[in-house]
Amino acid sequence: MPLLEHHDTIRAVVWNDGVLRLLDQRRLPFVETWLDCRSADDVATAIRDLVVRGAPAIGIAAAWGVVLAARQGVALDAAIATLRAARPTAVNLMWALDRMHARIVAGADADALAREARADVINLLAREARAIQDEDLAANRCMGELGAALIAPGSSVLTHCNTGSLATAGFGTALGVIRAGFASGKIAQVYAGETRPWLQGARLTMWELQRDGIPAKLIADSAAAHLMKSSVVQWVIVGADRIAANGDTANKIGTYQLAIAARHHGVKFMVVAPSSTVDMQTTTGADIDIELRDPAELFAVGGQRTVVEGAQAWNPVFDVTPHELIDAIVSERGVIERPDCERMRAVFGA
Amino acid sequence: MPLLEHHDTIRAVVWNDGVLRLLDQRRLPFVETWLDCRSADDVATAIRDLVVRGAPAIGIAAAWGVVLAARQGVALDAAIATLRAARPTAVNLMWALDRMHARIVAGADADALAREARADVINLLAREARAIQDEDLAANRCMGELGAALIAPGSSVLTHCNTGSLATAGFGTALGVIRAGFASGKIAQVYAGETRPWLQGARLTMWELQRDGIPAKLIADSAAAHLMKSSVVQWVIVGADRIAANGDTANKIGTYQLAIAARHHGVKFMVVAPSSTVDMQTTTGADIDIELRDPAELFAVGGQRTVVEGAQAWNPVFDVTPHELIDAIVSERGVIERPDCERMRAVFGA
Repeated sequence: MPLLEHHDTIRAVVWNDGVLRLLDQRRLPFVETWLDCRSADDVATAIRDLVVRGAPAIGIAAAWGVVLAARQGVALDAAIATLRAARPTAVNLMWALDRMHARIVAGADADALAREARADVINLLAREARAIQDEDLAANRCMGELGAALIAPGSSVLTHCNTGSLATAGFGTALGVIRAGFASGKIAQVYAGETRPWLQGARLTMWELQRDGIPAKLIADSAAAHLMKSSVVQWVIVGADRIAANGDTANKIGTYQLAIAARHHGVKFMVVAPSSTVDMQTTTGADIDIELRDPAELFAVGGQRTVVEGAQAWNPVFDVTPHELIDAIVSERGVIERPDCERMRAVFGA
Repeated sequence: MPLLEHHDTIRAVVWNDGVLRLLDQRRLPFVETWLDCRSADDVATAIRDLVVRGAPAIGIAAAWGVVLAARQGVALDAAIATLRAARPTAVNLMWALDRMHARIVAGADADALAREARADVINLLAREARAIQDEDLAANRCMGELGAALIAPGSSVLTHCNTGSLATAGFGTALGVIRAGFASGKIAQVYAGETRPWLQGARLTMWELQRDGIPAKLIADSAAAHLMKSSVVQWVIVGADRIAANGDTANKIGTYQLAIAARHHGVKFMVVAPSSTVDMQTTTGADIDIELRDPAELFAVGGQRTVVEGAQAWNPVFDVTPHELIDAIVSERGVIERPDCERMRAVFGA
């Protein structure tokens, strides 16, 4: 039996003696270089420029950005506002900054910095950022075990986008289930969709899996249904950007198409996301706004233009998979099989 | 009502005074340059190097290659063998060369060239090559009308890969239906999947549609199901590489996934291909070998590597759409709605 730690070697957000170090995801998989952030502005720029990506990882980086602001003695409210604006659609960014802000309000009165108690404030905030990071990692390990328990030994699985150590505090959500499943013999083979237009599957997931010794094959996104018909794929395992109160799940564009193909072939479909991704205020997937991004993202690949000038495109970043197509939602609070309103409410409250 | 000829301006294979001119598809959409072929070897190289692509266009180019061989006085059997080997999987290539060979056998005895009757042989072969080319164009125009007749006015349609003038003698198969449908007011908006890994949709179909004034939007292949849920798309219209006796259809990878998503959303699915693409000797799609190509095609985009060294991939070029998911097969012999063995036999014989 392989040891789990051999398949969990990557950390992309590292606090090191007053500096936040970020593994630069723009340059992966070919160059492993780290960007050092020494201020909240540095962190905001890194989030905006996609040095760090993945909703949980962005939230963690932003939390440490608040600590950096405190160390520099700059106004914390302004730093939080700057960080919040770095990527306005990432739910975890807001969640992490709200948590840091609540800690400031609760534990450090407005004049703490002025009273020369800056070290206390810094320590308080650093403990909170550390807690956010550690809790994310713990949630991922928990979800990894819960998700792997659903999988039969020796299975092949298909994943989409990047949901790994690069996107989180470490271990990953869907890719955490894959790590845990491989280590326990449940998963023998991983297929990864390349995930156009940004190629997170090709660039990042393939790098993570190779680096951590998990057998993986890349496929074109359009080859997924043919894969399900040709091979024995037991599970599609994906992450989530937002989960509505009835279990409808917004995730990277292409997820919905995979869910339809999975159901057509009797392949099971698993969504893996921490409870912070569940939004019980959103009734159904129809209430989730789908971001449309610049058509130009489809006009060039690797910096090289591929489409005639003047062309038009339709470029949604996410889609919504209805809960009827989901066999299991795995969170650190437990597994919800065949999710619906009632089963969601039982785990995540009103 | 727009005039059809305004939306049918492209010809990629042109015989001109003893020279076969090929629009170089490797350099589209940015450079429109022509390659002149003066021998069968030139044509074989152009086919091998993808200067010309698309099964009907390859067959037509090869037929003219035989004419060039006759003009040069080289052995015709050897020339045909060279052309046949240029892309061994393209059915139309074999079909066109068989037809040229039959003409040689029937109309010119083995010593015709030796008897100094070379001009007669050349004329005979040139008439046959011209017939192959003209019949393809006529078939495409016929299929265009038949296919467009199935579509309600003002519809939006989705297509995949490139099936247009570039892939045929002109007009196109699936794209011919789109040309005819746009000219007659049946089609108002076209969506084109980019068609990884070769990007024929992004590079070639978008160029053809823009050039011929037909409104088109590019989408990521993985956005098709979300498009069907978000917008009103009435038809998916695709070409075919081989159609089995029961209507099962092999076509570019991704076609099967589109057919599943179309059925899920109540969107209709049309296959457009000339009768030469129908192979009544192949009983079902299960008998069609699916070519697996070099995984490296998924490792680079636009010449730039995107995936970590040492990665593996699974890269099937085609998939098979079962006849149950096809609402209509359109050929120049007529339309087969809800194809099955019996309905196929009625149109294409045993």
